[in-house]
Amino acid sequence: MEDLVQLAYAVDTFYFLVMGAMVMFMAPGFAMLEAGMVRSKNTSEILTKNVALFSIACIMYLVIGYNIMYGGEGLFLGAENTVDDVLASGGDTYYSARSDFFFQVVFVATAMSIISGAVAERMKLWSFLLFAVVMTGFIYPLQGSWSWGGGFLSEAGFVDFAGSGIVHMCGAAAALAGVILLGPRSGKYGPNGEITPIPGSNMPLATLGMFILWFGWFGFNGGSELKLSNIDEANAVAQVFVNTNMAAAGGLVAALILATVIFGKADLT
Amino acid sequence: MEDLVQLAYAVDTFYFLVMGAMVMFMAPGFAMLEAGMVRSKNTSEILTKNVALFSIACIMYLVIGYNIMYGGEGLFLGAENTVDDVLASGGDTYYSARSDFFFQVVFVATAMSIISGAVAERMKLWSFLLFAVVMTGFIYPLQGSWSWGGGFLSEAGFVDFAGSGIVHMCGAAAALAGVILLGPRSGKYGPNGEITPIPGSNMPLATLGMFILWFGWFGFNGGSELKLSNIDEANAVAQVFVNTNMAAAGGLVAALILATVIFGKADLT
Amino acid sequence: MEDLVQLAYAVDTFYFLVMGAMVMFMAPGFAMLEAGMVRSKNTSEILTKNVALFSIACIMYLVIGYNIMYGGEGLFLGAENTVDDVLASGGDTYYSARSDFFFQVVFVATAMSIISGAVAERMKLWSFLLFAVVMTGFIYPLQGSWSWGGGFLSEAGFVDFAGSGIVHMCGAAAALAGVILLGPRSGKYGPNGEITPIPGSNMPLATLGMFILWFGWFGFNGGSELKLSNIDEANAVAQVFVNTNMAAAGGLVAALILATVIFGKADLT
Repeated sequence: MEDLVQLAYAVDTFYFLVMGAMVMFMAPGFAMLEAGMVRSKNTSEILTKNVALFSIACIMYLVIGYNIMYGGEGLFLGAENTVDDVLASGGDTYYSARSDFFFQVVFVATAMSIISGAVAERMKLWSFLLFAVVMTGFIYPLQGSWSWGGGFLSEAGFVDFAGSGIVHMCGAAAALAGVILLGPRSGKYGPNGEITPIPGSNMPLATLGMFILWFGWFGFNGGSELKLSNIDEANAVAQVFVNTNMAAAGGLVAALILATVIFGKADLT
Repeated sequence: MEDLVQLAYAVDTFYFLVMGAMVMFMAPGFAMLEAGMVRSKNTSEILTKNVALFSIACIMYLVIGYNIMYGGEGLFLGAENTVDDVLASGGDTYYSARSDFFFQVVFVATAMSIISGAVAERMKLWSFLLFAVVMTGFIYPLQGSWSWGGGFLSEAGFVDFAGSGIVHMCGAAAALAGVILLGPRSGKYGPNGEITPIPGSNMPLATLGMFILWFGWFGFNGGSELKLSNIDEANAVAQVFVNTNMAAAGGLVAALILATVIFGKADLT
Repeated sequence: MEDLVQLAYAVDTFYFLVMGAMVMFMAPGFAMLEAGMVRSKNTSEILTKNVALFSIACIMYLVIGYNIMYGGEGLFLGAENTVDDVLASGGDTYYSARSDFFFQVVFVATAMSIISGAVAERMKLWSFLLFAVVMTGFIYPLQGSWSWGGGFLSEAGFVDFAGSGIVHMCGAAAALAGVILLGPRSGKYGPNGEITPIPGSNMPLATLGMFILWFGWFGFNGGSELKLSNIDEANAVAQVFVNTNMAAAGGLVAALILATVIFGKADLT
């Protein structure tokens, strides 16, 4: 029986790590999508931003953010679960604390990537990186603590599967603030408000980025079930994989049809 | 004992989902390979085709194809396995029904991708997508039902591991029909039948696509063992990984040597 | 109990295979990084080298290298573990012999890729491939046998987690030898020793390659724990994932700051 608990712990930890690695792989997805969609003169800067934001997010969340979000003390991570902890927990502790950190930290980087795309071609490198430090070390963890950290939103009954609010709304709110402050890209609008389309410079890269993100979404949503090691949980994870795939496929076909109806041709972007 | 059955079910389901995600990742592999091999003026269209065919395959196979292939009734998927089902099955039901659908649907998309490469640069977008609807919703599932669905081929003793017949022959047959109907790319042959090579436009992309497909093949073949959770099955999956890798490596070295002998130099394509 | 041993064997084998596939995926990472960093006239050749070296490494290590390294007899692989072997081993045999070969062979290819990058733009294709045959069939396995194969280094107490010595030092030593023999790229240094920077031709590709390598490192280091199936081992694997991620992030931020301080601007390469 003890051996079975240990094996289940290993399986759930492994599941978390694999899903987390797939989420980490969304980083090149965002980078390629953004590099393909901007004008080629801005490619190098957007790539530097994507590489640097990911690194900064990892460091800030390790040093301070994770503790702000989950109530740990001081800097860096707390202790790992011991064998005795796990066996005494009666099933409540069923994966490695380090694997939880790993899965969380790639979520933080994803939220930051959402902002990066929104302010593409419009923000200086160092301003952006300074903002990344504040965002991933303090803003994201603080609002995350309200729900996943057991704070007031959680006590009010708020449930956030896979972080629609925590990751996407937080990222989008910051992105909106950035866009309002920065205004449109110069050359985007004419003097009378007419729109000048700015086409992407590299469609293969953008397509690759899109497919990498599609792949990464299985980790993002699939891993958010947090547990796999019995029949009901395994079924739920499988359902999440199918739903993720169908949502992407449905959205794509809808966009294809809409683009054809409105613009008269199927446009890849 | 019951807990052990549940954990084994979780492991086999997880194995199916990870392998399926790797097969899904073959989609950008095909897209990059084809985008790199066509002339640059056709890049955008071939990318649109690859993105759209994947989405259409997912939708058609969910709505009608899976039921045609495996004898389900009506539209959409049937019920998921309950805990009681699994425990009562005596080991016959050992993974999530949804994970099976997920693994199957990425196979359908792969068959469609084979066709896409064969008719590259020669077929209008909407004709191709209409064909994708028919192919993934009806043709592929119908012929698949003959073997994997338990139909007459299966009763006659036909066994198809990893879909050499179902996926590749079906895809290739449709591709051949398309090629016969469409004829060669204009400019490919001179008036006296001499061949004009049409070189690919982007070798790094094509190489990336090749390596992504190599990676995806581990999921395609490795997942086709369908079960992992005991020593013999685990050994078999490991053997499949090794064989897949050696087949790719051997094929590549053979092609390299042949190209050098016949054309006098090692040609990447 | 026997069933539990079988399931644990399956989990450890699956873990090995997934980690190995992630290491295999470092191949396009190296290929894209190198293709993006060389001058565009050399792109095609560097790609051919990367594709060919991976294939040659797989074949040579299968046919002769693995046996040299681990004391097997004759050519090709020995027998797979039977169910009886595993149950009689009292836990000493806990994963498929084929999965071990798979994980090892992608390490060999990685060592060879290190050399490929170092001699980029400076070595003829066929000389390089001939060297790959000798390196992956004989040199790497021979020095590997001293430690992982249980030879004199191992008996002297030398421990090499994840192959810092076996993979990286061996690869680097061969690369250094190659660089000394070949000299710098023509045009790199002026007549008075001044340095002419040779900028990379394709930053998005190089960035993609970097992120793919980052992803692959989880497999490389994470798989090097060799076992996952109990609480302590699962914790250790999770710790390795976190450390791998933080090492990459820390190195990147340090490089970013250094480049800014020394060169006055943040340089992506």
